[in-house]
Amino acid sequence: MIHRVLAADLPRHVGRRVRLAGWLHRRRELKSVSFLVVRDRSGLAQVVLREPVPYPEETVLQVTGTVVANPQAPGGAELAAAPVPAGVPAPAAHPGAPGAARPPLAASEAADPLVEVLSEAVEPPPFDLYRPTVPAALPTVLDHAPAALRHPRLRAPFEIAAAGVAGFRAALDGLHFTEVCTPKLVGTATESGANVFGVDYFGRRAFLAQSPQFFKQALVGVFERVYEVGPVFRAEPHDTARHLAQYTSLDAELGFVRDHRDVMAVLREALAGMHAAAAERAGAALALLGVEVPEVPVEIPAVHFAEAQELIGRHTGEDVRGEPDLAPAHERWLGEWARREHGSEFLFVTGYPMAKRPFYTHPDPGRPEYSRSFDLLFRGLELVTGGQRLHRHGDYLAALAARGEDPQAYAGYLPAFAHGMPPHGGFAIGLERWTARLTGAANIRQTTLFPRDLHRLSP
Amino acid sequence: MIHRVLAADLPRHVGRRVRLAGWLHRRRELKSVSFLVVRDRSGLAQVVLREPVPYPEETVLQVTGTVVANPQAPGGAELAAAPVPAGVPAPAAHPGAPGAARPPLAASEAADPLVEVLSEAVEPPPFDLYRPTVPAALPTVLDHAPAALRHPRLRAPFEIAAAGVAGFRAALDGLHFTEVCTPKLVGTATESGANVFGVDYFGRRAFLAQSPQFFKQALVGVFERVYEVGPVFRAEPHDTARHLAQYTSLDAELGFVRDHRDVMAVLREALAGMHAAAAERAGAALALLGVEVPEVPVEIPAVHFAEAQELIGRHTGEDVRGEPDLAPAHERWLGEWARREHGSEFLFVTGYPMAKRPFYTHPDPGRPEYSRSFDLLFRGLELVTGGQRLHRHGDYLAALAARGEDPQAYAGYLPAFAHGMPPHGGFAIGLERWTARLTGAANIRQTTLFPRDLHRLSP
Repeated sequence: MIHRVLAADLPRHVGRRVRLAGWLHRRRELKSVSFLVVRDRSGLAQVVLREPVPYPEETVLQVTGTVVANPQAPGGAELAAAPVPAGVPAPAAHPGAPGAARPPLAASEAADPLVEVLSEAVEPPPFDLYRPTVPAALPTVLDHAPAALRHPRLRAPFEIAAAGVAGFRAALDGLHFTEVCTPKLVGTATESGANVFGVDYFGRRAFLAQSPQFFKQALVGVFERVYEVGPVFRAEPHDTARHLAQYTSLDAELGFVRDHRDVMAVLREALAGMHAAAAERAGAALALLGVEVPEVPVEIPAVHFAEAQELIGRHTGEDVRGEPDLAPAHERWLGEWARREHGSEFLFVTGYPMAKRPFYTHPDPGRPEYSRSFDLLFRGLELVTGGQRLHRHGDYLAALAARGEDPQAYAGYLPAFAHGMPPHGGFAIGLERWTARLTGAANIRQTTLFPRDLHRLSP
Repeated sequence: MIHRVLAADLPRHVGRRVRLAGWLHRRRELKSVSFLVVRDRSGLAQVVLREPVPYPEETVLQVTGTVVANPQAPGGAELAAAPVPAGVPAPAAHPGAPGAARPPLAASEAADPLVEVLSEAVEPPPFDLYRPTVPAALPTVLDHAPAALRHPRLRAPFEIAAAGVAGFRAALDGLHFTEVCTPKLVGTATESGANVFGVDYFGRRAFLAQSPQFFKQALVGVFERVYEVGPVFRAEPHDTARHLAQYTSLDAELGFVRDHRDVMAVLREALAGMHAAAAERAGAALALLGVEVPEVPVEIPAVHFAEAQELIGRHTGEDVRGEPDLAPAHERWLGEWARREHGSEFLFVTGYPMAKRPFYTHPDPGRPEYSRSFDLLFRGLELVTGGQRLHRHGDYLAALAARGEDPQAYAGYLPAFAHGMPPHGGFAIGLERWTARLTGAANIRQTTLFPRDLHRLSP
């Protein structure tokens, strides 16, 4: 029996009879020869036939034939049983296109490769999947995602994302974190109150969790160090290039920290793991997109929020002192500054004012209007939010009282802290946002397989 | 600066001054000596003091002192600066209990270990966490999960689960699967129609996905081989030991299969990966629970549904021919039979009648009333369902027509098959169920951190 060989492995089988299986990526009929490009998960392979093939693109085929070396074919080898008859012009070639110019081969009596249809395409794809760039606008891509994502350039970001998340886990596994699975259905809409999705839960009202924040904190009491990769839900009424109703959150939380800097050190390891895994496991996808994975500095530069405001004021002439947050333009400016001054694509901004941070944020004891929290900017955009949390039960009661909130609303959350919780902190990375920043995608929907937003609930 | 040492590493530091940090698992005050047991993520460590300590159990402490070898202490070493004064009786010992009998030490002028409180426990735990067995019933455990899960025996299943899911991913990564993240919010309640949770989605009606079935099939067209580890939601109105409203599904789907047997072969690899990782990464948790990880046979025995019915009939005297499914008692009987006849804890039952399988199931061409689907029984209980799916667009239209269903209800699903989809199949493993079968937990809630069911929506 002949086993299947992947397109990328074809060059290792020159002279042997093999079976390719994949999608008919492109076909070209010339007068007396047909060029097929077959696409599989590894790449593209060329098949040369003397007979025309009547199947449309995206038909699923298997092709059995002999591997012939051809420096002009993608990968340097193709399936071809017979030489191209004399007089057939070599079509203009671009990488991966069928019909790349081929040297003359010795005549042979061998039969053509055998083409068998596994499954026919009954509708044409929404656009030509074989074109090197994507000939469609984003809404078309999203409306037809199952077919559109087959385009190698549209698929590539998700190979990078899969590698990144594997690197995240590998880094935290190496630091003895425990992976956990927490509920996405919760009884109270506590964390921010707004922008939650309501669920009809056996006749009761439930909500979709906006983050695993409370669970991961409680689980620090059990495992000390936990992470979770899972969906989070935000009923964001914003129709922007950055907002999604569901995204994948890479959450981590760890106990026995001195302060937020221990959390930042773990985040640095997690990011370094993501970047290393992307380079190692998704090299072809990165190359296809022309993306270089930036180095994560051993020590990511950090600037205090107040200092950042001063820098911005000094360089831009805008007086932003007293503002409780950074405007997107100022984050971008800081990103440029970090690249210029520190040669880093990453910048920690620490000590955000307590006023804009959630009630569980740990204040800076020396300057209690500032927090022990941070954002990590990646190329001038917030990629991660994190920090040290309160850990004493009394501090929680005081923080809620100071904000005029009813502790009863946190009845499922507060008891964890009554039983002894170490100083702890954590962070959350948005996977789609990381992939978008890395690949230069302008819209978060380009790095989400089937985005959900204000308008989109299918496919 | 003295760095933190984990309890399990204490024996490697005998004679050195170290810092332990963790929870006060237990304390015992004798006339002139106190025994503390400190619990951290690695295990338990004993601390001996001449002064009494006034803190309640579960207080978070750090203890700085000298590591002294003591064969009777957990792990063979403890923190103690001074010998136990003469005349102090050795308390009765059980493993991990404070005050295990200690040999006399030479007198020393060294100070007691220094105990510092990081965070005080302001309420006692719901039951004694230091008892070797859990002195509480399941509802108490679930109501107080953040504290209760700290009990080493209650925490252990989740360490096994985390290891298992890592093994699942490692096995599929090795087979070149791509990890994907799919929407949990869907526009139509297609897969089974019943038991779905409704969501208020920006004023529209949406549903929580009961499985990533349709997405993972569509993504076979993109990546050929995909897996996802994520939550699935079932509005199960059943109040049983087996039903949850949310559980973690380990989903895989792969293209270019000959039939369901290729899917079963991949499932075998995934399970072997889970069992290997559990043994390798969660050895302490398995030992604590007294669990041995059963071997996954290289070839898991398989029996056709019709043959299984004959076996049951022949051995039990019950005539079950013509029944469209197996009763739980018959699954248990088959599990016993597989152990007896094949020495296997696992048994594939293949070819379930089409009547009881979803419309996307691929029929057995030779016996079209039977399917190319399977269940995998683990110790006589269904752990996995899977099979080959239909892959031709026309077959889907015919299957829906035969069941009297409107293809319009599947408008987000069917187009994927119009663009050429290879023969494919897949499976889904319930993580909590796997952990429960492995550890012998009688109730699925014992292997779910914060279960969600008909009655429970917190903590």
